[in-house]
Amino acid sequence: MNRALGVCYYPEHWPEEMWAQDAAEMVAAGISWVRIGEFAWSRIEPEPGQFAFDWLDRAIDVLSRAGLKIVLGTPTCTPPRWMLERFPDMLAVDAQGHPRGFGSRRHYCFSHAGYRRASGEIAEVLGDRYGRDGRVHAWQIDNEYGCHDTILSYSEAARDAFRSWLAERYGTIDALNEAWGNVFWSMEYRSFDEIDLPNLTVTQPNPSHELAFRRFSSDQVVAYHEVQVAALRAHTDAPLIHNYMGRVLDFDHFEVGASIDIASWDSYPIGFLSDRLDGSAEHKARYLQQGDPDMQAFHHDLYRAVGRDGRWWVMEQQPGPVNWAPHNPAPLPGMVRLWSWEAFAHGAEVVSYFRWRQAPFAQEQMHAGLKRPDNAPAPGLAEAAQVGREIAEMPQIALQQAPVALIFDYPSDWAWATLPQGEDFSYFRLMLDAYRALRRCGFSIDILPSTVTDLSAYALVLAPGLATVPDALQEALAQTVALVGPRSNAVTEELRIPIPMGPALRGLDVTATRVESLPPHVTRAVIGGGTVQHWVEDLDGTAETLLQAETGQAVLKGNRRLQYLGAWPDADLWERIIHGLAKEAGLTVLTLPEGLRLRDTATHRFAFNYGPDLVEFQGKTIRSADVSWWGI
Amino acid sequence: MNRALGVCYYPEHWPEEMWAQDAAEMVAAGISWVRIGEFAWSRIEPEPGQFAFDWLDRAIDVLSRAGLKIVLGTPTCTPPRWMLERFPDMLAVDAQGHPRGFGSRRHYCFSHAGYRRASGEIAEVLGDRYGRDGRVHAWQIDNEYGCHDTILSYSEAARDAFRSWLAERYGTIDALNEAWGNVFWSMEYRSFDEIDLPNLTVTQPNPSHELAFRRFSSDQVVAYHEVQVAALRAHTDAPLIHNYMGRVLDFDHFEVGASIDIASWDSYPIGFLSDRLDGSAEHKARYLQQGDPDMQAFHHDLYRAVGRDGRWWVMEQQPGPVNWAPHNPAPLPGMVRLWSWEAFAHGAEVVSYFRWRQAPFAQEQMHAGLKRPDNAPAPGLAEAAQVGREIAEMPQIALQQAPVALIFDYPSDWAWATLPQGEDFSYFRLMLDAYRALRRCGFSIDILPSTVTDLSAYALVLAPGLATVPDALQEALAQTVALVGPRSNAVTEELRIPIPMGPALRGLDVTATRVESLPPHVTRAVIGGGTVQHWVEDLDGTAETLLQAETGQAVLKGNRRLQYLGAWPDADLWERIIHGLAKEAGLTVLTLPEGLRLRDTATHRFAFNYGPDLVEFQGKTIRSADVSWWGI
Amino acid sequence: MNRALGVCYYPEHWPEEMWAQDAAEMVAAGISWVRIGEFAWSRIEPEPGQFAFDWLDRAIDVLSRAGLKIVLGTPTCTPPRWMLERFPDMLAVDAQGHPRGFGSRRHYCFSHAGYRRASGEIAEVLGDRYGRDGRVHAWQIDNEYGCHDTILSYSEAARDAFRSWLAERYGTIDALNEAWGNVFWSMEYRSFDEIDLPNLTVTQPNPSHELAFRRFSSDQVVAYHEVQVAALRAHTDAPLIHNYMGRVLDFDHFEVGASIDIASWDSYPIGFLSDRLDGSAEHKARYLQQGDPDMQAFHHDLYRAVGRDGRWWVMEQQPGPVNWAPHNPAPLPGMVRLWSWEAFAHGAEVVSYFRWRQAPFAQEQMHAGLKRPDNAPAPGLAEAAQVGREIAEMPQIALQQAPVALIFDYPSDWAWATLPQGEDFSYFRLMLDAYRALRRCGFSIDILPSTVTDLSAYALVLAPGLATVPDALQEALAQTVALVGPRSNAVTEELRIPIPMGPALRGLDVTATRVESLPPHVTRAVIGGGTVQHWVEDLDGTAETLLQAETGQAVLKGNRRLQYLGAWPDADLWERIIHGLAKEAGLTVLTLPEGLRLRDTATHRFAFNYGPDLVEFQGKTIRSADVSWWGI
Ligand SMILES: [Zn+2]
Ligand SMILES: [Zn+2]
Ligand SMILES: [Zn+2]
Repeated sequence: MNRALGVCYYPEHWPEEMWAQDAAEMVAAGISWVRIGEFAWSRIEPEPGQFAFDWLDRAIDVLSRAGLKIVLGTPTCTPPRWMLERFPDMLAVDAQGHPRGFGSRRHYCFSHAGYRRASGEIAEVLGDRYGRDGRVHAWQIDNEYGCHDTILSYSEAARDAFRSWLAERYGTIDALNEAWGNVFWSMEYRSFDEIDLPNLTVTQPNPSHELAFRRFSSDQVVAYHEVQVAALRAHTDAPLIHNYMGRVLDFDHFEVGASIDIASWDSYPIGFLSDRLDGSAEHKARYLQQGDPDMQAFHHDLYRAVGRDGRWWVMEQQPGPVNWAPHNPAPLPGMVRLWSWEAFAHGAEVVSYFRWRQAPFAQEQMHAGLKRPDNAPAPGLAEAAQVGREIAEMPQIALQQAPVALIFDYPSDWAWATLPQGEDFSYFRLMLDAYRALRRCGFSIDILPSTVTDLSAYALVLAPGLATVPDALQEALAQTVALVGPRSNAVTEELRIPIPMGPALRGLDVTATRVESLPPHVTRAVIGGGTVQHWVEDLDGTAETLLQAETGQAVLKGNRRLQYLGAWPDADLWERIIHGLAKEAGLTVLTLPEGLRLRDTATHRFAFNYGPDLVEFQGKTIRSADVSWWGI
Repeated sequence: MNRALGVCYYPEHWPEEMWAQDAAEMVAAGISWVRIGEFAWSRIEPEPGQFAFDWLDRAIDVLSRAGLKIVLGTPTCTPPRWMLERFPDMLAVDAQGHPRGFGSRRHYCFSHAGYRRASGEIAEVLGDRYGRDGRVHAWQIDNEYGCHDTILSYSEAARDAFRSWLAERYGTIDALNEAWGNVFWSMEYRSFDEIDLPNLTVTQPNPSHELAFRRFSSDQVVAYHEVQVAALRAHTDAPLIHNYMGRVLDFDHFEVGASIDIASWDSYPIGFLSDRLDGSAEHKARYLQQGDPDMQAFHHDLYRAVGRDGRWWVMEQQPGPVNWAPHNPAPLPGMVRLWSWEAFAHGAEVVSYFRWRQAPFAQEQMHAGLKRPDNAPAPGLAEAAQVGREIAEMPQIALQQAPVALIFDYPSDWAWATLPQGEDFSYFRLMLDAYRALRRCGFSIDILPSTVTDLSAYALVLAPGLATVPDALQEALAQTVALVGPRSNAVTEELRIPIPMGPALRGLDVTATRVESLPPHVTRAVIGGGTVQHWVEDLDGTAETLLQAETGQAVLKGNRRLQYLGAWPDADLWERIIHGLAKEAGLTVLTLPEGLRLRDTATHRFAFNYGPDLVEFQGKTIRSADVSWWGI
Repeated sequence: MNRALGVCYYPEHWPEEMWAQDAAEMVAAGISWVRIGEFAWSRIEPEPGQFAFDWLDRAIDVLSRAGLKIVLGTPTCTPPRWMLERFPDMLAVDAQGHPRGFGSRRHYCFSHAGYRRASGEIAEVLGDRYGRDGRVHAWQIDNEYGCHDTILSYSEAARDAFRSWLAERYGTIDALNEAWGNVFWSMEYRSFDEIDLPNLTVTQPNPSHELAFRRFSSDQVVAYHEVQVAALRAHTDAPLIHNYMGRVLDFDHFEVGASIDIASWDSYPIGFLSDRLDGSAEHKARYLQQGDPDMQAFHHDLYRAVGRDGRWWVMEQQPGPVNWAPHNPAPLPGMVRLWSWEAFAHGAEVVSYFRWRQAPFAQEQMHAGLKRPDNAPAPGLAEAAQVGREIAEMPQIALQQAPVALIFDYPSDWAWATLPQGEDFSYFRLMLDAYRALRRCGFSIDILPSTVTDLSAYALVLAPGLATVPDALQEALAQTVALVGPRSNAVTEELRIPIPMGPALRGLDVTATRVESLPPHVTRAVIGGGTVQHWVEDLDGTAETLLQAETGQAVLKGNRRLQYLGAWPDADLWERIIHGLAKEAGLTVLTLPEGLRLRDTATHRFAFNYGPDLVEFQGKTIRSADVSWWGI
C-alpha cells in the first residue's frame, strides 16, 4: 500500500519568483504530489480560443524539477466570464426559477449541451498538451460536483433534456403515467412535452416525478463527466480522478466513479461538524475542534468502494480553520496528523492538504493553508511534516478484509429526500448512526454499493434504509449474517409501495404494515433497554420477534442469519442489536472509551482519540487528538 | 338525527375487478355512503371535449348495487394538463410573483374568468348526466378550497379583477383614498387602474389595502363556487356539499355555505396537531397520537353553523397516519372510533373516512386508509366497523340547545393577520383558547357567525377578537350574559381605528385606550390568580373593574350582563372568568379531569378521554382513547 | 447649549379645523418645534407639475402663529404613484431580483438618475417657495435613508451605475482584477461591462466585489442626498438636517452628514430592543418596557459626531408603543421623560416626539402619539410636558470633554457583514459591547469617526473591529492610551488580508496569525476571570502578554499605552480590561448598580435608572425609570 502526501497549489495566485521556494518547502515537508490548475481557466484561455500555456509549462517545470508529481485539474468548474457570451443560457436555475449567476463558481447547468461540449474541448486541449507529459502523473476532472447545491437545475436546458430522458426511460407516455400513478390527481400527461420540472408546484409534486428528476439529474452529471473522461482517455494513460465533496449525495458517485481510476474526496472535519452534521449541541461542543469521530472514516470507507480497485485519495485535507462553515474554530493540536493517519489507515494512497498557502484575497481568504498568507508556516505544516516523516519510516501496511459491511446507495437518499414522511428523516443520518454503532463496537468496516453480489467475505452486513433491495443483493445477503431495515425494500424503483408490501425479504416472513414518524425528543422504550425514535414500523409476519417496544410493537424480527429492524434505534439500542448480531456472526465486540475509534489493517491496529480527554485502551494511553498504532 | 358512515373511494385508481369486492366490504363495515370522482377529471375528460363516462357509469352501478349511496364530486380542484393549453395564465401566482405550476393540485387562480367558466362547464356536464340519477344522493363541489394556501393569488387575473371589485365597492377613487387613508405616505391613487396587489411592497402595505384584497379574495371564492352551484342546481335536487379543510380561514365559509345544503369538513386530528396547532411541546407530546382535545369539536360546532339548517358531515376522517404533516405518528387504538363518535355527538349526519384503501403510488402513498395498499385491513377498519355496529344499535339522539355560544368571524381573522401588532397574534388561537376554556368547564357550545341577531336562547355568549361588532350583534348581546374582548370592536370594516375608540359597547363605558403585545413567556400576574399574556389593553371608562393586573391595569370591566376583557388570559385566568360569567348566567360549571371532554345531546352525555391515562368522572371509568356515554 | 422639544405633525392627516387647537396644545406642552411635510408629496403635487401649496401655506401659518418653529421635510421618501409612470424602472430591486413595488414607502433606487433628478426638483420647488420664509427654521431632507433595507438595490440602474463607479475607482479592468484577486476562481473580467451585481451567485461572491458594491451603494446615497442639498442651499440659509434611523448601517452617515448642518436620529428604544438588538432572552425581558440601557446613548454619541460642530437632534422620539417591532409593549411610566433627558444630557438641541397624534388609519395606526386617535391625551404627553417644564426651569448645561472615545466606522460594518467568518459576527454588536463596558464603568464617551487625527484630548480610546486602521489614526492613537482589536486592521480597504498581516500596529509587535469563530455558548476561560467567545485570534509577536486564555492563547498583548485585544470578551472580561486601561489612563472607574447609567456634563451628573428596581447610588435613591441629576 502506497502512502504519500500531497498539496493543492495555485501557481497563478503567486508571483512566479515564489514557485521554486514553495516547491522546495513542499518536498522538505515530505510532500510528493501537487495538484494544480483546476480553477485556472481564465489564465489558460484568457480569450475564447486563445491559449496561454507558457506560465503553466513553467509551473509544471518548476514543481516537477523539485521532485513533485503533478495532478492536473480540468478547470471546468470555473468557466470564465466570456463563456456566458457564448452560452447565455448555460446557467443553472434554482428551484425558485432564478438563474444562478456568474461571480463565484459552478455556475453551469449539467444539462446544457453547449457547455458540456465546451468542457470536453478544454479537457481535450489540456490532454493534447499534457497527456503524454511524464510529469503529469494524474488528472482531476472538474472539482466537487454538486458542491453548493448544484446538481438539481431547473433550467430550460434541463427541462428539455428531462423530457428526452423520460421518453427514453418509459417509451410511451402511457407507460410513464402508469409508472407514476398520474391518475392520482388528474396529473396524466398526453405527451412527454407536457412534463415540466417538479418545482414551484402548489403542493408537493408526485414523488415518482421528483425521483425521476433526481435520477435524471444524476445521469446528467455522469454524462457530463464522461465527455471529459473520453477527451482525456484519448490522450493519456495517467489515472483520472474526481474529488467528491463530503456529504454531497445528489448524484451517484459509484456511477461517476465507474469511468475513472481513483476516487478522492475533500475532507473538512471541523467544517462538516458545523455545517452538515446532525447531532446534539453537546455532541457538537464536545467535538468542536476535532470533527465528528465517524464522519471521516465513513467517507474513507465509502470512497474505497467508489474507487476502481479500491484506489482512493483524500484530495483536500483541512489543515486549519476553514472559511465556509457557520463557525470556524481551529483544530486541536494533533488533529491534522490524526486525520491524515486515519485516511492512511483506511487505505488512502495520498492525503493532499488544501491548500499550500492561504490566499490573502477572494472568497477563501480566511481558509487556512499549510502556510500563512505572509508565507510563515501555519500550525498545520509541522503536523503534515511529522506525518511525512512517519510514513517514510513506518513499514508499508496492507489492508485487511473487514469483517463487517454496510450497504450505501445514492438513490435511497433521493427516495427518502423525496418522500421523507417525517421532515427530519435523513438517509445519511441513518447510515452514519449505523456506521457509528459498528465503530463503537470496535469494527473495521467496508462500505459497499447495492449492486454488490458477493458478500461471502463478510461475517455481518447491514443494509438500513435501502429503499429497494435488488434481487441479487437479497441473494448475497444469504451468504452472511444480515440486518436489514428500517425502511429497507419499502418502495419500488419508481417510488411506489410494492405489492406485496416490503420488506418481503426472501426467507423472512416480515411485513411492515404501517409506519410512523415521530418528532424529535419523542421516544418509545424497548423492553430490555434502549429506545426507538424518529421512525417506527408496525411489523407483521411469522418471523420471531427478537426485540419489542413497550407499546407491544415488534422492533426486530428474524432469525440467526437475517433480521429486519423496524425502527430507528438510539445509541444504546444499536449497541444491543450489534452485540446480538456479532454473536451470531462469531465476531468479538470491543468496548471503546468515548471518542476512541479503531481501524485494523493486516498488520496494525490504529487507535484515534477524537475525544477531549486522555484515554486508556488495551494497555495504551492515548492523549486527546492523538493517534496510536501497534502490531496485531 | 341521522347517523351514517361513509368512505372516500377512487375507482379510477384500482382495477375494475376489485370494485365489487370493495363495495361489499364497505357495506359489511357498516358504511352506507361513498364519495367518488373529485380528482378524476383526466379520466372523465381525457381530451378537451371528449368525455369518457363508461367507467364512471360502471363504478356508480357497482357501488350502488352493493347498497351504497353516492356522493359525486366535481373534479375542479384538479384541472388536467390540457387545461393549461387553453388558459396558460390560469395559474395562481405566489406572493413572490412566481406562477404555481402544474404537477399537484389546486393550480388555478379563483379570479381567472376562463377557468371559472370551464369549472362551471364540467359541473354542468356532470349534472346533466347524473343530476337526476337516483343513485347519486349528494354532490361535492370542488375539494378543500384554500388548502395549500391557495386563496391569495397575485396573478394578473386577480389584479384586474381586484380593480373592478374596488371600483364596485368604493365607486370613486377619492372614496377609496379616503377610506384607506392613502394620504398617509402619499399612497393616493388617481384611478383604480393604478392599484396593484399588496405584495412585494418595500415595507408593509396599507392594512386597508391588504384587508380589501383579502375580502376580494374571499369573494372570488364565493363567485367561483356559485358558478358550479348554479350549474348543478339546474340539474339536480340532491344536496350540494363542500368539504372545508381544518383551520383554513382565508375565505368566508359562511358565505360559501350560504348557497349550498350541507357543510362538511376534513378532520385530521393528528396531522393538525403536528402541522397547524399552536401549543407547547408538552401539549403536543401529550396528545401526539390523539390530536388536540378541542380542535375537532371546535370545527364540528363551526360547521354546524356553516351548514344550512345545521346540516353537516365529516367528509374526510383520518383513519391512521397521514403523510403531509411534519411528523406522522399513528392514532392510539380507539381514537378512530372516538373521533367518529365525537362527530356524531356534535350532530354530524355522516362521518366519512379518507380513504378506503391506501394508494401505493403518488403523493399520498403514505396516507393510511381503512385498508392497506395490499388490500389487507388496516387498524382503522375494525374501529370503523365497531362504530358502524354501534350507530345501528344505539337509539337516535337529538341535538340539544347549547347553553353557551361563541361568535366566530372570518374577516376578524383577516383583520388580525393583516394588522397583528404582535407577530404571534392569531385570531384562531384566541378563539380556540376561549373554546377550550368553556369546554374544560364542561359546556357544550354553539358557534355562531357575527351576523346572528337572536341570542335569546343562550345563557352566555363570548365574542373575543371580533374585529368589528355589528350593530345587530350588539343588540343581540343584550339578550344574554356576554363577554366581549380582547380586541373586539377595535377596528372598522376598513381596518381603521374607530372614533370613538373601541370597544364602545352599548351600555358599557369601556374604552381600550392603548394596547400592548408581549413576547412569548412574558406574563403579567392578575390579582387573585392567573396571568395575562400576548396582548394587554389599557382600559378606561366608568364600568366597574372586575379583574385587575398587579400592574394596576384593569383586565376585566363590566357588569353582571356584559363584560369586556382587555387582555389574553392564560388557562387559569380563563377558568376564573368563565366561572364568574357562569354564575351570572346561572350555569353550572364542572371540573373535568385533564384531557376529558363532554358533549351533551338531548338524551345523552358523551365523554371523550383524549388523555393518555384512564380517568374517573361522575362514577364512570373511562380509558384513554375511549368514549363513554350515558343517559341524562 | 440649547434645549427644546419638538413634535412631528401631519396637518394633511387631519381636518383643518383641528390645526389651531393642536398648535396651541403643543405650545402648552412646552413644545417649540414642529416637523411637517416629509410624507406629503401627493398633496403638494397631486398631478405631475401641478402644485397645491395653499394647504401647506395655511398649515405653516397656523403653526407658526402659535409660536412654533417649522422643520419642513422634503417628501422624497414617498414619491407618488404617478412618478412610476414617469420612471417605471425607478423601483429598487431586492436580492432575489424582484422589484420592490409601490404601496408603502422608500420604493426608489438611489441609483436611478431620473428619480434622483426628480427629487432635486421637488426640493428646488420647496426651497423656492419656503427657503427664505422666516417661519421655516430648518429643513429635513428625505426621511430615514436605509430604513426597510433600502440601500442595496439590484436594479439595472444600479448595475449600470456600479460599472461606471468601478471604472472611476479602478481605471482599468486589470487593476480591478488585481485588486479583487479575480484570478481566484477564474473570475477575471475583460471589461467593466462584464461585471454584474453580486447577487444570485452560486455561492458567495468575491468579498472584494461585494464590499465594492457596498461602498458604491453608500456613495449613491451621498450623491442622491447632495442633489437635494444643492437644491436647498441655493434657496435657504436655514440648517439642513437628515433623520437617521437607529442601527441602519448600510451607508456612511459621516459622509451624508458632511454636507448638512445638523444630524438627527429616530429613537425607538422599545422597538429596537425587540427588533434589532442582540441579547439574551433575560436581558430582553428585563428591559422590555425600558429599552436597552446603552442603545440610545450610543446613538446620541454617534450623531453628536455625525453632526457638523456636534449639532444633533432626536427627530423622532418614541412616546408609547410602536407598531413595527415583533412585539410592542408600552414604556414604563417615566421612560418617555427619561429618554428625553438622556438625549439632552448627551447634547441634543431638540427632542422631537413622533408623533403628535396617533393616526387612526394606514400602516402606523397602532403607533402611539402624544395624543390618542380620539384626541385625548396619551400617557406620553404628560411626561413630555414635564420635560418641557424642567428644561424651562433648569439652567443651561454645557457639554464636557469626554475622557474616553470609541472609534466607529461604517465601512468596517460592511467589511464584516461581507466576510463575517462566523455567521453571527456583528460589528455593531461588538461596538455596543465595548460601549456598554465603558458605560458600566461610569464613563461618558465620545464616538469618533476613523478619520479623526487628533486624540490628544482623550485619556483612553478604543477601536475594536476597525477593519482598516488609517495611518493618521495610528499616529493619533499614540497620543493616548489605546485599545485596538479584536479584528482591527485585519484587512485592506479592498477586503484582502494585508501583508504583513494585521494588526501590525506601529510600535506594537503583535500579529494575528490565525482566527477562530466560535458558536454561541462556547466560551474559553481567561486566566484570572472572564471568558472569550464568538471570536478568538492567535496572537504572535514580542509584545507582552497581558491576559491569557486557559488554552494558552494570548488574549491581550501590549504595553501601558497601546494594547491589542485578540478576542471577543464577555462582560466580566471587558470590565477587567477597562479597569486595567483606566489605571494606565489615570481614570477613575465607578461601580454602578445594574441598569444604572451616568452622563456627565460640565456642571451636572445625570443618572438614568433603566432597571426595574430602585437603586441607591452616591447617596441618591433613584427609582426605576427615573432620571436624577446633581451638580458636580
Ligand atoms: Zn486531441
Ligand atoms: Zn423570484
Ligand atoms: Zn430656484
